[in-house]
Amino acid sequence: MLSVLPKRKISKVLIFVILGILLLALSSFVFANDPNGAATLKKDANAPVNYTWTLICGFLVVFMMTGFAMVETGFTRATHANNTMLMNLMVWAFGTLGFFFVGFAIMFGGVGGAYADLSKLLTIHIGGKAWGLLGGTGFALAGHTYDVGIFMLFLFQAAFMDTACTIPTGAMAERFKWTAFIVYGFLMGGVIYPVFGNWAWGGGWLSQLGQIGLGAGYKDFAGSGVVHAVGGVTALAGAIILGPRIGKFIKGKPVAMPGHDLGLGVIGTCILIFGWFGFNAGSTMAATDLRLAVVATNTMLAGCAGGLTAMLYMMKTTGKPDTSMSCNGVLAGLVAITAPCAYVSGLSAVIIGGIAGILVCIAVWLFENVAKIDDPVGACSVHGVNGLWGVLSVGLFADGTYGDVKGIIFGGGWGQLGAQAVGALTICVVIFLLAFIIFKIIDKTIGLRVSAKEELMGLDMPVHGALCYPEFALSSLGVPQSYPDEDGNKSATVSKSISKGV
Amino acid sequence: MLSVLPKRKISKVLIFVILGILLLALSSFVFANDPNGAATLKKDANAPVNYTWTLICGFLVVFMMTGFAMVETGFTRATHANNTMLMNLMVWAFGTLGFFFVGFAIMFGGVGGAYADLSKLLTIHIGGKAWGLLGGTGFALAGHTYDVGIFMLFLFQAAFMDTACTIPTGAMAERFKWTAFIVYGFLMGGVIYPVFGNWAWGGGWLSQLGQIGLGAGYKDFAGSGVVHAVGGVTALAGAIILGPRIGKFIKGKPVAMPGHDLGLGVIGTCILIFGWFGFNAGSTMAATDLRLAVVATNTMLAGCAGGLTAMLYMMKTTGKPDTSMSCNGVLAGLVAITAPCAYVSGLSAVIIGGIAGILVCIAVWLFENVAKIDDPVGACSVHGVNGLWGVLSVGLFADGTYGDVKGIIFGGGWGQLGAQAVGALTICVVIFLLAFIIFKIIDKTIGLRVSAKEELMGLDMPVHGALCYPEFALSSLGVPQSYPDEDGNKSATVSKSISKGV
Amino acid sequence: MLSVLPKRKISKVLIFVILGILLLALSSFVFANDPNGAATLKKDANAPVNYTWTLICGFLVVFMMTGFAMVETGFTRATHANNTMLMNLMVWAFGTLGFFFVGFAIMFGGVGGAYADLSKLLTIHIGGKAWGLLGGTGFALAGHTYDVGIFMLFLFQAAFMDTACTIPTGAMAERFKWTAFIVYGFLMGGVIYPVFGNWAWGGGWLSQLGQIGLGAGYKDFAGSGVVHAVGGVTALAGAIILGPRIGKFIKGKPVAMPGHDLGLGVIGTCILIFGWFGFNAGSTMAATDLRLAVVATNTMLAGCAGGLTAMLYMMKTTGKPDTSMSCNGVLAGLVAITAPCAYVSGLSAVIIGGIAGILVCIAVWLFENVAKIDDPVGACSVHGVNGLWGVLSVGLFADGTYGDVKGIIFGGGWGQLGAQAVGALTICVVIFLLAFIIFKIIDKTIGLRVSAKEELMGLDMPVHGALCYPEFALSSLGVPQSYPDEDGNKSATVSKSISKGV
Repeated sequence: MLSVLPKRKISKVLIFVILGILLLALSSFVFANDPNGAATLKKDANAPVNYTWTLICGFLVVFMMTGFAMVETGFTRATHANNTMLMNLMVWAFGTLGFFFVGFAIMFGGVGGAYADLSKLLTIHIGGKAWGLLGGTGFALAGHTYDVGIFMLFLFQAAFMDTACTIPTGAMAERFKWTAFIVYGFLMGGVIYPVFGNWAWGGGWLSQLGQIGLGAGYKDFAGSGVVHAVGGVTALAGAIILGPRIGKFIKGKPVAMPGHDLGLGVIGTCILIFGWFGFNAGSTMAATDLRLAVVATNTMLAGCAGGLTAMLYMMKTTGKPDTSMSCNGVLAGLVAITAPCAYVSGLSAVIIGGIAGILVCIAVWLFENVAKIDDPVGACSVHGVNGLWGVLSVGLFADGTYGDVKGIIFGGGWGQLGAQAVGALTICVVIFLLAFIIFKIIDKTIGLRVSAKEELMGLDMPVHGALCYPEFALSSLGVPQSYPDEDGNKSATVSKSISKGV
Repeated sequence: MLSVLPKRKISKVLIFVILGILLLALSSFVFANDPNGAATLKKDANAPVNYTWTLICGFLVVFMMTGFAMVETGFTRATHANNTMLMNLMVWAFGTLGFFFVGFAIMFGGVGGAYADLSKLLTIHIGGKAWGLLGGTGFALAGHTYDVGIFMLFLFQAAFMDTACTIPTGAMAERFKWTAFIVYGFLMGGVIYPVFGNWAWGGGWLSQLGQIGLGAGYKDFAGSGVVHAVGGVTALAGAIILGPRIGKFIKGKPVAMPGHDLGLGVIGTCILIFGWFGFNAGSTMAATDLRLAVVATNTMLAGCAGGLTAMLYMMKTTGKPDTSMSCNGVLAGLVAITAPCAYVSGLSAVIIGGIAGILVCIAVWLFENVAKIDDPVGACSVHGVNGLWGVLSVGLFADGTYGDVKGIIFGGGWGQLGAQAVGALTICVVIFLLAFIIFKIIDKTIGLRVSAKEELMGLDMPVHGALCYPEFALSSLGVPQSYPDEDGNKSATVSKSISKGV
Repeated sequence: MLSVLPKRKISKVLIFVILGILLLALSSFVFANDPNGAATLKKDANAPVNYTWTLICGFLVVFMMTGFAMVETGFTRATHANNTMLMNLMVWAFGTLGFFFVGFAIMFGGVGGAYADLSKLLTIHIGGKAWGLLGGTGFALAGHTYDVGIFMLFLFQAAFMDTACTIPTGAMAERFKWTAFIVYGFLMGGVIYPVFGNWAWGGGWLSQLGQIGLGAGYKDFAGSGVVHAVGGVTALAGAIILGPRIGKFIKGKPVAMPGHDLGLGVIGTCILIFGWFGFNAGSTMAATDLRLAVVATNTMLAGCAGGLTAMLYMMKTTGKPDTSMSCNGVLAGLVAITAPCAYVSGLSAVIIGGIAGILVCIAVWLFENVAKIDDPVGACSVHGVNGLWGVLSVGLFADGTYGDVKGIIFGGGWGQLGAQAVGALTICVVIFLLAFIIFKIIDKTIGLRVSAKEELMGLDMPVHGALCYPEFALSSLGVPQSYPDEDGNKSATVSKSISKGV
């Protein structure tokens, strides 16, 4: 539809729509709730320490974009580095603004308790019970959401949203069209992420599964599902529609396309470890919940265990400690522990992380060799597969010492695992389809993929007009700009060689 | 004057002066106030959380030097990378020591309230009113400034000082003489920065403008003016006196000199975003001031908006999303929101940041094409222009929900904008002149600029004796070491081609 | 012994041993103490702020691994970069798991006070007094150590342990065999580090030296000795047994082997500065101890002073401000202030750091030119020598304003210096020998050093199967893969040229 309208008209319409929203919102600021925090402080003497904890942890989560930028760029190729880097920065800008104007209201605009003001929840009634579907208060943080508590919640959650947004840019690296990327960024922050977010964290139906006997309802402490699996399946949908990079599969066999700066990837992984403490431990959103110490420790242990098992698995299968898979192992352990981090013991964290480290190695191999999907940095395996593993592990390892969540191993029965399975299935089906449809629409209107010529040049020059490393001699700049086609035919022309299947 | 004395004698004199100061200060430590914090804790039960908040935010601000080092190095050339990197590290060392021995006392040695001990303020009387000019207590944190509260204040403020110090190293990159740089570092931390700092934050005359009806006096919550505009105009003074890099202007037209590692610049930008949360939200200097949640959120929103508008502006004008200008847009948004962050709503933050993103693109173009000033990383545009814009925006967008600061849009009248304008003007005139004179004196004595030969080689080898990337093949090492002169004359000799004008 | 058993059998035995430990530990979780923190919160209203402070500082310390990875990689060669990076990441994984299963119990499993549960301390009786030797409770954080307070302590201490683990990887870079490295990682985290850690911080005999009149006992606030000197002497033992890199010494003269990315080293240094605030100030382990403000400020001042004096020393001796030595100066200042940071004034911090900056330059020269030890990044000088200097400086500069610790200069007599000297001596003799024996055993069984062929290729390809920078043209990849032997004989064969002596 967008392609039907003349371009000039669109941008004018857009500007008026934006201006309209701005004015509407600006006028509503007279209804501010507690914008300077004086009333909140009076009610709750622990507010300062809780705000301190939550916000600093939120800052750490924002910092994770640095790590993602480095991992995704380091593990892809030099002539796309500028593009991959800038995507990671700009997806934060687009996603955050999408979340500010729309997404936050959808996700949290119906939550009870501390944020009772955000009360417009779209609900449906099934079996005599009310099930939350979507929120609807808090657009642009205007009106009575101009409140210190809401702003704190927004900052923390916006940081999480950005993590989900940045996962697909890894799987879709080196061939994602810039204008399509802009649209994706706003929709991921404004729609895709907040929908499941509402169901799990915004008081929606998944969190209410306890009312039909499924344990304590879907439990996802810091977002193995909400953030990572949602990001992972969105990445998968994007990677499928985009198709593999030119030259990735020759006669159906995957060709290695090594990252151009593995050290950058390692450093990015280290930064992500740091940020993950904020991600998981900060999810108590209160310093008075001292379980945060267990959460932080479990996070570290699972990351270590994932790195160890992935490294050992690669040494066993290839004879060599592989750098990128060791990093992915650490990240897989961190992703997996993200849901259960508050509900399990240190030893369980080691086991969950250890399994994740092996899972990620197997998943990367399967995606590449069996499903023939080109995921340059393994985002679907790290975040998708291990996000789902993390969600399920709550139903296994939760030991009942926190929040009355108990898994099978510790005698909690099948209820909790059931709730977790429903959540995991919802991500795999509903969110995958939502993402798939959105990418498909983008593909059919403005196009999702760069031209083959741009891709073969490396995106930096044609898209951004500048190489990332203009003074360094790169072997990749000197090689002939053509690849064999899928049948291994060397004479493949550029126009033919852009293949989306395998 | 310095050049008149024999060199050996200077260093001996210097050593004696330093030793003298050290001894004097050491002897005064018997007058410690509350060096272990027991008394402070007794008086204020909230001290632990306030110290925790302020110090951790201060650590984040110190971390910003990492981001500045990466941005400035990534956006300049490879054969100067070692020099640019080391400058960013060492300016922290010089500036902090200058601030410790001298600057802090000048800036805060007259403040009232919590730090009433620091009471020696140089004041003048005009129109029956007392106006603060300079402080004078707390040299080397000795005597009764050996106190936990003062040390906390010092750490936080020293981190801010370093940010101001590091801005000019970007504008003066690739041609700044090392010995001149050392002198500059101490003077920036010891004199230039603290002077305006006292006027705005140390209880000086700008903060007292309310007594003649100019709103609540000059308000600059986290330093758009105090830190960024001061850094920016100092950078401008330095860049003017240094003159452009050899080869930058050919027949008066600017020549593009692309950064050697744009990814490094993006990563640096990401790190700066992270640090900026500490910069702005930490400026409450108390966790009990829950407005910090609004401050943090506004900071993020303005950065996002700045990145978005700068990227769109570049796409509109050049057809391409430019990496360095997108980064500069994010930074411009952050700089601009730094003064108003506590006084405005989320939507106003988006607007302020969005305007900043466009301003920085225009300013970079004007400096380069109209003023013919060579500012390799756009420091004058990012920090100078947008620092001033941030200062003024308080007078427009402050909505009265915090600290009784109200701008024109929200019915506050012209008073606040007046106070902000006086502050902005003071930076542009007084601080610019102060910096200009200091750089001029350095230039006339020890010389401000490297030799043309050193510059053409790239500073790394001649100044530091080591290349930054000794194993990498660089195209810039192979090219002939001469540039056309201003008239485009290829045969320009090295001695002629060092031109300071255009 | 390990090499006698058939390999397949070992791994099976290992798996059973690991499974056994896991099951044993899992069963013991019924004895949890306060796993959700409710009881702790009830007892101590300040727990939230103390946990917030300690944990966030702990996160900063974990982040230091990023800095170490960058410093160690940036200051070594490009064809080993992948290896050096991955070592820094994986040593965290191995060390943390070793500390989790074994080390933490040894180090803290006998401490009194807040952690009275950890009560099994191996003690000996000499002169009618009990002296602690080793702890023995808390393996795998099981049983009654499943407690929020213990988990907080574990996280903070594990981060410190990792810092000690990562120091030797710098001194042993470019020639450390991967399997030997794995074993080292577990033993460093599980044994070497915790032994001295118990004596100094776990209630062991060094901390009890006050009972025989040596001041307040061995005082090492944040670990100049416990972490840095222990890491430094372990690094020295490793570097001695490994021997120098091939080509490092020609006819007994050291050959410069410049780092391949000095900028990376500078950035790493900046990150370490940031992390060090957590390291030192966090060591109060309580926000209610407001001395943390003095600690943080002293840390910054000492780092600045160390950078300044090292830079000036290099300018004086070589005429040039050396990048890597300036970084090492900053780090040396930080290492040195780590023990005394809580006991001294700001001015003393400047003096201690300033001396450290000169010490490190001299030590690097001595190790290389006199002792003929090849320490690629100067780890023994930075952490070993200055760790010891830091330990001793407590006995000189402690001013009695905190914790009743007083050095000679401030009238404390020789007692404190005596206790510090005993600690320093213990590190140099006992820990050095322990490390030496462990490395010797590894060397005799699985071998400590890579083959000469692997070393000459650069470790990335033969060990990890991937170059760090596969697309960049490296001069080091093109040069002939042979070096002159020690006598300068150009025809040295690979098998001959691997020399361990000088």
